[in-house]
Amino acid sequence: MASVDYPKEFKGFAVQTPSEWNKPKLTSYAPKTMGDHDVDIEIECCGVCASDLFTARAGWATNWDKKGSPQVVGHEIVGKVVAIGSKVTSVKLGERVGQGAQASSCLSCSRCNKDNEQYCPGMVGTYDSYYPDGYLSQGGYASHVRANEHFIFPIPQGIKSSEAAPLMCGGLTVFSPLKRNGCKPGAKVGIIGIGGLGHMAIMIAKALMTDDNNKFDGEIYAFSRTFSKKQHALEMGATHFIATAEKNWHVPLFDKFDVIINCASSVQSLDINAFLSTLGVEKKFVTVGLPDEHEKYDVSPKSFFKNGSYLSSACLGSREEALELLQLAVKHNIKPWVEEIPLSEAGCHSAMSRCWDGDCRYRFTLTKFNEFFNTGKN
Amino acid sequence: MASVDYPKEFKGFAVQTPSEWNKPKLTSYAPKTMGDHDVDIEIECCGVCASDLFTARAGWATNWDKKGSPQVVGHEIVGKVVAIGSKVTSVKLGERVGQGAQASSCLSCSRCNKDNEQYCPGMVGTYDSYYPDGYLSQGGYASHVRANEHFIFPIPQGIKSSEAAPLMCGGLTVFSPLKRNGCKPGAKVGIIGIGGLGHMAIMIAKALMTDDNNKFDGEIYAFSRTFSKKQHALEMGATHFIATAEKNWHVPLFDKFDVIINCASSVQSLDINAFLSTLGVEKKFVTVGLPDEHEKYDVSPKSFFKNGSYLSSACLGSREEALELLQLAVKHNIKPWVEEIPLSEAGCHSAMSRCWDGDCRYRFTLTKFNEFFNTGKN
Repeated sequence: MASVDYPKEFKGFAVQTPSEWNKPKLTSYAPKTMGDHDVDIEIECCGVCASDLFTARAGWATNWDKKGSPQVVGHEIVGKVVAIGSKVTSVKLGERVGQGAQASSCLSCSRCNKDNEQYCPGMVGTYDSYYPDGYLSQGGYASHVRANEHFIFPIPQGIKSSEAAPLMCGGLTVFSPLKRNGCKPGAKVGIIGIGGLGHMAIMIAKALMTDDNNKFDGEIYAFSRTFSKKQHALEMGATHFIATAEKNWHVPLFDKFDVIINCASSVQSLDINAFLSTLGVEKKFVTVGLPDEHEKYDVSPKSFFKNGSYLSSACLGSREEALELLQLAVKHNIKPWVEEIPLSEAGCHSAMSRCWDGDCRYRFTLTKFNEFFNTGKN
Repeated sequence: MASVDYPKEFKGFAVQTPSEWNKPKLTSYAPKTMGDHDVDIEIECCGVCASDLFTARAGWATNWDKKGSPQVVGHEIVGKVVAIGSKVTSVKLGERVGQGAQASSCLSCSRCNKDNEQYCPGMVGTYDSYYPDGYLSQGGYASHVRANEHFIFPIPQGIKSSEAAPLMCGGLTVFSPLKRNGCKPGAKVGIIGIGGLGHMAIMIAKALMTDDNNKFDGEIYAFSRTFSKKQHALEMGATHFIATAEKNWHVPLFDKFDVIINCASSVQSLDINAFLSTLGVEKKFVTVGLPDEHEKYDVSPKSFFKNGSYLSSACLGSREEALELLQLAVKHNIKPWVEEIPLSEAGCHSAMSRCWDGDCRYRFTLTKFNEFFNTGKN
């Protein structure tokens, strides 16, 4: 039990150095200065995202390791609103809310004004990201988090907190490119990598391809190296399963897909040219994970020449899309496959290590924050 | 003077071996079997495209060098219809027509049915491409060419043949991705590589961005390594010129472009990540040239992560687009900057060598075919 002296300090599990990436230690730290549009969430639970691991390991060009300061990761947060800035209008004290991987943006540029705040140059991530005043953001393996209301989403009744948490980053990250690239009744969709993101992508694609009469129409192909996850993928909603270790798997899939969402956490072993050949004319291959920085695609101008296909990445989604996803989840009973792990140093260690090792079916949510921090009393 | 025994044989300048890529020799050869929808063109002139050089050098995985047979290149053809198959309806004997880089497709698949015949799996290129019966297609540095009427375009009056020729492949190749990606009044467009394709891309973009009241609106940025082509690019219609050898050229262009068309013949030295940063959210970078096969892009998932931009290639354009381009060219007086070189072994050698060396401002058209082959009498 580690009670906190909130609101002067937050407590959280902070990575100390990249070599100790899976051994975060309980730490206390000052929150950012409260803004007029800021909201404090007393955290109830938090999903474990591959981004947490890449940041903790400094596999990306991270800020925290350069600064030498501890870093609390975690950006699939669900909890209760316990304080609001003077101008907050979108949430109320006591309301159950969620926060994903974004904490702030300028909210005034052309990107923010067109529901693309995730691409705002002033984007502040939930952790490992600098606010304009130099404060380095701290994430959700913690007692509390403070963020702009625009990035705080009321959680509808009918979704369990530990199952809502993974929707905040992982769910939104796959929902947005699916929605923006024609995933609707009748579509043919490919999902690569049946892990945390991929398993949500299958379920969300299925919901998006279900019409108002609750009739599903279309094809959802799940792609994995081997057949080991086939049964699970079909249970999630995939209509077909392809093991890419099989030779020439792509040949019968020529010209098949309207969109492929790549959820694999590495692109090194990905036969990108085979996947591109399975796209229709001018259709899109969108990667939603960010692997280690040194990983490159094996593509040349010729890769796209037979169908004018497109290669891209997508980053998160907009507030509007987050709210839409939550409604979709309620309507279609989307439930991420979550293993709950109670919060503690041992719990963080176990969740991060097992997630890195791929020993996860299919998402961890750290839970029982209130018990650990002695919060949740009011 | 090399008179031909047409229609039993065509005469043309054929590359014998990749090492002698710029020394095609006069050869005679049997045309493909005449089909019901085939059209014979008595060639008047033919543009010299970089593809001719890559094919002749076998820089791509070409067919002709594997077969060990001579190869006539050239696919920017203008000439006169001298024979038509029994079911041809779209052209008449004696009509002036053009043909680009495509000679046939199945004309019945979903791609063909949606004005994407250039992406038909049964696509037959004007040269170095097999017909279903095994005939290896031969191109336009020749007395005649035979192709399906779908790929034969009537040339409107008001365009000189030697200036129409480069529109058949190079012009169409840049027109299609410009048109399909929002190049219209008010757009902001980038054109990389001010050579054969690039100079037409500037002129065509200018026409597409001119409204019905003949008012141009938008920005056309021409990108080149150095400032040497600046004056020319501005004369062609560019509104801005960027020399990418200058440090940090891309920084002020953040979030600028609706589309970038890459006309450079190599992507090795291209700072693709800098270019991607200049695109707006979910906007596109489209390469239209095909460099040597070994050239790869230096891209990773992170390359696209800040704006969800897209990387692609485009191949040619549809018949509908070719006809539309010709109308646009007449309306806006689009005239490729052509240097005419009379046809002969020496002429082919000079055009191909100088084109490879970049000694071209900005397109060569081989001319005087009728004089050389003693055709054009009827």
